[in-house]
Amino acid sequence: MKPLILISNDDGIEAAGVRRLVEWLSPMADIVCVCPDGPRSAQSMAITVNTPLRAERLPDLHGAQMFKVNGTPVDCIKLSMHRLLDRRPDMIVAGINHGSNAAVNVVYSGTMGATMEGCIFGIPSVGFSLCDHDPNADFSHCREWIEKITAATLANGLPEGVCLNVNFPKEPAMPSQMRVVRAARGKWSDEFKEYIDPHGRPFYWLQGRFLNEEPEAKDTDEWCLAHGIVSVVPTMVDRTSPDAPSLRWLRSLS
Amino acid sequence: MKPLILISNDDGIEAAGVRRLVEWLSPMADIVCVCPDGPRSAQSMAITVNTPLRAERLPDLHGAQMFKVNGTPVDCIKLSMHRLLDRRPDMIVAGINHGSNAAVNVVYSGTMGATMEGCIFGIPSVGFSLCDHDPNADFSHCREWIEKITAATLANGLPEGVCLNVNFPKEPAMPSQMRVVRAARGKWSDEFKEYIDPHGRPFYWLQGRFLNEEPEAKDTDEWCLAHGIVSVVPTMVDRTSPDAPSLRWLRSLS
Repeated sequence: MKPLILISNDDGIEAAGVRRLVEWLSPMADIVCVCPDGPRSAQSMAITVNTPLRAERLPDLHGAQMFKVNGTPVDCIKLSMHRLLDRRPDMIVAGINHGSNAAVNVVYSGTMGATMEGCIFGIPSVGFSLCDHDPNADFSHCREWIEKITAATLANGLPEGVCLNVNFPKEPAMPSQMRVVRAARGKWSDEFKEYIDPHGRPFYWLQGRFLNEEPEAKDTDEWCLAHGIVSVVPTMVDRTSPDAPSLRWLRSLS
Repeated sequence: MKPLILISNDDGIEAAGVRRLVEWLSPMADIVCVCPDGPRSAQSMAITVNTPLRAERLPDLHGAQMFKVNGTPVDCIKLSMHRLLDRRPDMIVAGINHGSNAAVNVVYSGTMGATMEGCIFGIPSVGFSLCDHDPNADFSHCREWIEKITAATLANGLPEGVCLNVNFPKEPAMPSQMRVVRAARGKWSDEFKEYIDPHGRPFYWLQGRFLNEEPEAKDTDEWCLAHGIVSVVPTMVDRTSPDAPSLRWLRSLS
């Protein structure tokens, strides 16, 4: 029996990125693709608790079963695992995201939300993103790496609680390289554009510029991507900080 | 000048939990309270990218400025930091959440989403949650701890990239205690209730039961809460796993 790969994304079932992923991975595995019914960018690990969910089967694509769900990326993974799949997947792959999920973007990303949810289920999970928001972005240079990383992850698995955040530069170096690195420190600044409505009241739209706080650090995803190199960040689900011992004042409250 | 505390939550500006927080913290600081205009539970670190945001000023409460925003908890923090506040807050406090954010719940929680966003801004940030979903829950036993933890955090600060996830048991031990612990390992199971609509098509509603995978581990939040003890988990924003060195097969792909 071929391995089973569950594919999802946050750009929605119609996005070019996920359709490439289905096409490229279907020779190596049985594929079930379960995606939001429209764009759900920046949904992080949000889940739908107050409204019902539906899954609608669509025509197969490259032999893969295709479903759309009226929920978030994490909803797609949960519903697949509990209701849609008839066996446990060997791997979960999310993407290819239209836009970078490097550095702090990992915390807001719906693509990485789906990937981390897969990791919570104990399944080797990888998120792929291309540093290009264009709906018609050229993903072709991602193909070789996606095939290699997926095949190697199927063969080797991942440590418990660890998933992979893979980002592709918009324009790869020649020949392209890949590095295992850490998320760069940085922040978004100037995050809202202000408008005035016809009644004189302000409203705001999220925008912003990412500021890399350590542009010289070669062991970071942002450095790789700025130099045409594919970045892979091993990403963990556990949030407990190892800094607890330094918080003596906190323990002394008790 | 008194310190400035920014308060937010995910249950919405009308929730009893956040109104207690405003009441109890206003004697020790200037307070600006910026919350979603309705419930946004389980919104994690979702942000609103495709629609505009508005902030509406409401009548003051206990001397605090009150705003409602048509967005997520993280939107509330971002909009406050960039547009609503006239000085940088000394601390961000989220909650009091109606329901536990212990164990894996930290990744889905909008309350902890707001707290982690505060941490990304480099501000000492604490999320408070009570293990009781009742809209009319009794928060009174949380008061002493919230006052103590907030005052001590204002005085001591927190390490860079670390915030606090504080959970209160529904029924505290007598006398109540607090411990600095780690998030328990566990998962949700049986996560969807299935229904059939009048046209014979299935739909699903998220439910589930949390399974603590290490109920005997006394150094976990779940153990504390099961024994009437307040749990404090130092929680980090960085997601890079320290397990990279074990992934030799991954580096060998390059």
